[in-house]
Amino acid sequence: MARDVAIVGVGMTKFGEHWDKGLRELIMEAGIKSVEDAGISGKDIELIIGGSMSSGIFAGQDHTGALFTDYLGLNPIPSIRTEAACASSSVALSTGIMAVQSGRYNCVVIGGVEKMTDVYSNMATTTLAGAMDRDNEANFGLTFPGVYALMAKRHMHQYGTTREQIAMVAVKNHENAMHNPNAQFHRKITVDDVLKSPLVSDPLRLLDCSPIADGASSLVIVPAEKAKQYTDTPIYIRASSQASDTLGLYRRPDITTVNANVVASRNAYKQAGMTPKDIHFAEVHDCFTINEIIATEDLGFVKKGDGGRFVQSGETQLGGKIPINTSGGLKAKGHPVGATGVAQVIEAVEQLRGNAGGRQVSGAENGLTHNVGGSGSTVVVHILSRNRK
Amino acid sequence: MARDVAIVGVGMTKFGEHWDKGLRELIMEAGIKSVEDAGISGKDIELIIGGSMSSGIFAGQDHTGALFTDYLGLNPIPSIRTEAACASSSVALSTGIMAVQSGRYNCVVIGGVEKMTDVYSNMATTTLAGAMDRDNEANFGLTFPGVYALMAKRHMHQYGTTREQIAMVAVKNHENAMHNPNAQFHRKITVDDVLKSPLVSDPLRLLDCSPIADGASSLVIVPAEKAKQYTDTPIYIRASSQASDTLGLYRRPDITTVNANVVASRNAYKQAGMTPKDIHFAEVHDCFTINEIIATEDLGFVKKGDGGRFVQSGETQLGGKIPINTSGGLKAKGHPVGATGVAQVIEAVEQLRGNAGGRQVSGAENGLTHNVGGSGSTVVVHILSRNRK
Repeated sequence: MARDVAIVGVGMTKFGEHWDKGLRELIMEAGIKSVEDAGISGKDIELIIGGSMSSGIFAGQDHTGALFTDYLGLNPIPSIRTEAACASSSVALSTGIMAVQSGRYNCVVIGGVEKMTDVYSNMATTTLAGAMDRDNEANFGLTFPGVYALMAKRHMHQYGTTREQIAMVAVKNHENAMHNPNAQFHRKITVDDVLKSPLVSDPLRLLDCSPIADGASSLVIVPAEKAKQYTDTPIYIRASSQASDTLGLYRRPDITTVNANVVASRNAYKQAGMTPKDIHFAEVHDCFTINEIIATEDLGFVKKGDGGRFVQSGETQLGGKIPINTSGGLKAKGHPVGATGVAQVIEAVEQLRGNAGGRQVSGAENGLTHNVGGSGSTVVVHILSRNRK
Repeated sequence: MARDVAIVGVGMTKFGEHWDKGLRELIMEAGIKSVEDAGISGKDIELIIGGSMSSGIFAGQDHTGALFTDYLGLNPIPSIRTEAACASSSVALSTGIMAVQSGRYNCVVIGGVEKMTDVYSNMATTTLAGAMDRDNEANFGLTFPGVYALMAKRHMHQYGTTREQIAMVAVKNHENAMHNPNAQFHRKITVDDVLKSPLVSDPLRLLDCSPIADGASSLVIVPAEKAKQYTDTPIYIRASSQASDTLGLYRRPDITTVNANVVASRNAYKQAGMTPKDIHFAEVHDCFTINEIIATEDLGFVKKGDGGRFVQSGETQLGGKIPINTSGGLKAKGHPVGATGVAQVIEAVEQLRGNAGGRQVSGAENGLTHNVGGSGSTVVVHILSRNRK
């Protein structure tokens, strides 16, 4: 990468149902926490970049960048809203990294927000379907549980992945979330619970699906050479990589893999000068349980087709070879879509700072985040490290 | 600015009612035209940045960045969607400039799109109100014609601006649009036509309002030092500046001026090493006629309060001291909101290349574009020039 960039402050709301809070209150809570964590004040901030997927539908409010700037009391500094479905705030971060690398900005606040619960009936599912190919998929009745069910069915058929292995992703992530105070769910579940939960889209059941949630997340980024002015434990962004695949699942030659996962992660390893073996933990995009299995394969942590057996082996649990989704993942931490990418990065920062409490990965030096928009049409991978080089 | 950036290709659709085209077709038409104009092929393009305000509502399709990449056949390169209400694609351009300045990208395609006409009843007005402070303005019944009517009333009261002067903005812009084949309206109007058109929000009438439209626009940008590889007439971006003001009009001390206009333009002049006197023409954000008057004042072309008299003097017409909105402006060229910012820049490029035909400003060396989101919560100013320095 051009100029090295570091994270010096993080902050997020609890994810979940916030009936007493709107977009403004969520943004303010997360933004102020990150600014306080960085020990900076408003006058240090030069640019805001905020991710949100469908605030215009969920909350009637577009122009979300201006909302961030205004409600954080930061006018007249500029703001950018980025949108890339469930990867919106990862794109905010990668855009912020470019802003610092351009040499024009030395202190950028990155945010993500979504207020999803205050809608009627099936409006959330309908809105989220705006992330797939609306004209050629959603308009024919496909929903996101359906998209990922198709991928699951094919993965089971092609690689012998079992229904139980897929369920184990949810069990592990609920277990991890027990140690995360910001998680939506604090409830252990069993494989049996998953298999007996209501069928959503065969083979996926309710407990395979990440929940609708409200939440916001925020980071403060600065040039690496200035990071020690702010904190003794800056976390360095060693790679920021994004790739695209077809908007529609139906146009892919193989739906058990996502090409953008492969391209984005390979480019990220190259930027960081690392291989999958150098990564000590990862936050991956488990919007549905099957996607964690596909991601661990595509990211190179295990051979294609072995993801189900890898979960079963326990190697993705805390204490395993590569703990996946120590935060609880989208499944149990919650998935307020626009806030998710930055929240993944916050988990990586907490791990690398050694602040992750009961879910701490011991000796973690390098972590990876993997955030997906749609069915993998957008994939963003970041690699973070305690070490600048 | 850090690294100099140049525009080497432009393309847009006609603005207007495109009943036979969706988002995809509009994006493809504009994108392909810009790429052909630059004489490049898909493999040269490294990043796409596309602006769109409310594609999720207007067309049921969010994740618009991925849509651009996919339908232009450019997977797996990354894409970013920016949203800043009616300034969405100007923010795409300023983000693209940062991307080039970061040193990571050498060829970026910028786009803007909106498909607005395919909605029922008053849905367009309701959707656009997502650009103001929804909770504190729109939810109490305010619409954008109402916002700008308040600004007009106060401007008339405070500075003696007349109803006729405001109408002259529309008359001039319709006249200019006669020479622009991409404009929505090719129809001359008179002051009397404006004053007799239906009342929308007192004092603004139908012919004071920019129309709902479909359209897309696209640019190709590269580092200035490489621009001559692509074209003999690169147009240089001498300044890219953005500022924010309150989301709600009700929180401003003076509604006859927009602070973000002032801040963004002053910073832009400083970046370019220019003053308003060095600007030979400008495309300004005349979403409603009154806003052209406010903008010409805030941008420093005329003293605050004199904007109405300035229009009346004829100095903003073709052949005047500073021709404003030679393209026809939002009023007559049309205003597919996400496409507008880039379309303003396209007009500046055509003028600076000397390709503007019957609306050509003779001897134009430097031009300014001014794009507004909401009631001025976001303002983006670009200064373009035939000369690199």
